[in-house]
Amino acid sequence: MKPVKVGLLGLGTVGTGVVRIVQGNQEDLSSQVGSPIHIERIAVKNCDKPRSIEIDPAKLTTDPWEVIRDPEIDVIVEVMGGVDATRQYILEALERGKHIVTANKDLMALYGNEILEKAQEKQCDVFYEASVAGGIPIIRTLIEGFSSDRIVKIMGIVNGTTNYILTKMSQEGASYDDVLKEAQELGYAEADPTSDVEGLDAARKMSILGTLGFRTNVELRDVSVSGISSISKEDILFAKRLGYEMKLLGIAESQNDEFSISVQPTMIKASHPIASVNGVFNAVYVYGEAVGETMFYGAGAGEMPTATSVVADLVAVIKNLKLGVNGLKQIVPYKNKKLKSDDDIYFKNFLLLHVDDKAGVLAKITQVFAECDVSLDSVVQQANPNNPAAEIIIVTHDASKSSMNKVLRRFEELDVIRRVKSHYRVEG
Amino acid sequence: MKPVKVGLLGLGTVGTGVVRIVQGNQEDLSSQVGSPIHIERIAVKNCDKPRSIEIDPAKLTTDPWEVIRDPEIDVIVEVMGGVDATRQYILEALERGKHIVTANKDLMALYGNEILEKAQEKQCDVFYEASVAGGIPIIRTLIEGFSSDRIVKIMGIVNGTTNYILTKMSQEGASYDDVLKEAQELGYAEADPTSDVEGLDAARKMSILGTLGFRTNVELRDVSVSGISSISKEDILFAKRLGYEMKLLGIAESQNDEFSISVQPTMIKASHPIASVNGVFNAVYVYGEAVGETMFYGAGAGEMPTATSVVADLVAVIKNLKLGVNGLKQIVPYKNKKLKSDDDIYFKNFLLLHVDDKAGVLAKITQVFAECDVSLDSVVQQANPNNPAAEIIIVTHDASKSSMNKVLRRFEELDVIRRVKSHYRVEG
Repeated sequence: MKPVKVGLLGLGTVGTGVVRIVQGNQEDLSSQVGSPIHIERIAVKNCDKPRSIEIDPAKLTTDPWEVIRDPEIDVIVEVMGGVDATRQYILEALERGKHIVTANKDLMALYGNEILEKAQEKQCDVFYEASVAGGIPIIRTLIEGFSSDRIVKIMGIVNGTTNYILTKMSQEGASYDDVLKEAQELGYAEADPTSDVEGLDAARKMSILGTLGFRTNVELRDVSVSGISSISKEDILFAKRLGYEMKLLGIAESQNDEFSISVQPTMIKASHPIASVNGVFNAVYVYGEAVGETMFYGAGAGEMPTATSVVADLVAVIKNLKLGVNGLKQIVPYKNKKLKSDDDIYFKNFLLLHVDDKAGVLAKITQVFAECDVSLDSVVQQANPNNPAAEIIIVTHDASKSSMNKVLRRFEELDVIRRVKSHYRVEG
Repeated sequence: MKPVKVGLLGLGTVGTGVVRIVQGNQEDLSSQVGSPIHIERIAVKNCDKPRSIEIDPAKLTTDPWEVIRDPEIDVIVEVMGGVDATRQYILEALERGKHIVTANKDLMALYGNEILEKAQEKQCDVFYEASVAGGIPIIRTLIEGFSSDRIVKIMGIVNGTTNYILTKMSQEGASYDDVLKEAQELGYAEADPTSDVEGLDAARKMSILGTLGFRTNVELRDVSVSGISSISKEDILFAKRLGYEMKLLGIAESQNDEFSISVQPTMIKASHPIASVNGVFNAVYVYGEAVGETMFYGAGAGEMPTATSVVADLVAVIKNLKLGVNGLKQIVPYKNKKLKSDDDIYFKNFLLLHVDDKAGVLAKITQVFAECDVSLDSVVQQANPNNPAAEIIIVTHDASKSSMNKVLRRFEELDVIRRVKSHYRVEG
């Protein structure tokens, strides 16, 4: 059988895993696709770097264009990351009729439409299972498993770094700064952790999940984002005391022709299946009109889990190649849903206020809520021995985002409120 | 666009859900497959029965052969259940070149091979996502999502009835008989619950998952089965006290060229993700060599969740139909793994013994374990005010099934042991 020839862009963590699986499971893989799979050319940063896998040095090049332009190569596996140059490589590869497997969430979140359109024009496959939630086959699940259903809500823990930090803070009562430092030492967080801890990485993944789940174009700019860097030990204690866990949740919801999408620290009911997803694990909770509650759990990153998804995509592309149907099963978003305005996005809120410790304060505060049309689930006032101000803990019923913004603006003008110490979304 | 014509066998719970989704999501579905989907003929038991959906009475027939033989029909959706007659319908439909979507675990567990072989001969699709774990797309996940990996272990809560009963027993301290009665009243358990509570239903589903996960023929007779009907309140209390939950777990494991597969009440570590799957929910935990730990959670039964999987399969069949590739992507098991002997199946065990309350008993018992080569993790002896005998609770380290059987046979001859009150597998 003529082997299928694959070009690999990048031989870092995931690339190494891909080579390991293709070499180690060659017999299994060729039983499934009907021919051997050869990794023919590999673009790397440094050809002389020592590696943990055996690679014929003649296959290595520092020039990605050499891989893209190799006429022998049928499929490009892109695991080099980056956006601008990588976009050029992918578009050129498609132009030359090569199929693409990529693990690049940044690229797919920013240029997914352009790439999928080019792929359709050229009848090529573009598969990107590994771009969201590493080893969890959530993209297949949304495209195929739930093709029959209308997805109403997607909640994702799609960033392992932040979930590791929040889990440690919750389980050990440690501070954000201490856990971040430890995570950096363990390699779970990068030296510059901004993209993870500020929620940008999760936002990119959520825009991909939203697009697939709601079958409409969800752009990265549609995602309202806030990160975990200002969460305190105290916040997590309050969450626990109220029966919640603090998680960085991506939440996408859709009804009729509208959707909302966000990433933010969220207090989620401890009994919810996603609340017990701990450490670097990822999970995506999907609620469908017909299927109801489902959840998909697994490793969100790492060499082998991510490579599992990449090679599973490669198998799918090669099966299509054998059948001559590449590019024909691509689902392009066929709906035209609009982003909801803040007036129509409803959720529960947790607020921790530092206020003057004197009579009438609670009345003034509850008055503001009433005037802004936000009804309250619970209000607790307490003294804190470490704090000269009194603390008020408020949980609202579902309130529109715009009403809550109005409340917060009114609070700025209210002299009895010293500080809105914390404000979180509440789910479940 | 010429509509795709579908014949439906059965219009019970799941069949009604299928009609509801095909009618209600027609626009979505036809956007995906490129033509309308018409349910053309429906075989029912009684044409005059009042129904909760609108159906043109002219489409109904009490004769399944009328549906099978209708030359207009492209795809047969089988949701009538049953084995022998249904097998004939399916084989004849395949003979006539019709593609099959089925939710029938009994049929697939018993005659899956025959049906898949006939499908391959006739270049037809046979999809059966709904046969295991209702709305959870676990079959797709094993075939496609993990095509690149070697699955080492599958643990499934794949029977909602028994999970409901065990959850209630655990959460409310209720007895098996009381909860079973309640489950029957609520419609969660059938009047004759044997197939559920004795683990047969779970065994059928596990044989399907084992076949797909290990890519080898796993027969129903390979599954060693025991049910939940003899679990006592006391057993569940002991489990909790030791940090476990009691679940009816299907467990399939494979190393190299061998596999083991079983269904039995199992004490699973409370911190394991599958331990907190409660009520009628199902979950399948999959451990792959590369991907590591994953879990897939959702409704295991019910009209709409099961229908979601059936219609997702229908969409897949119709997409293949449009591309002319039906029957070409069927994966037949390509490995030839052997069922492990009891000498090679290892797990931890929990034992509750009722023994004479006198000196030297513990020494005699531990001597038996030593002679049978089973090492112990913990041994606790306690008096029970309600029991004249003393109780000994033993947890073993991993021991071979044959060694444990030897221990149990030796216990029968040991006069100080009045009764082996309970014996369970322990996981995690």
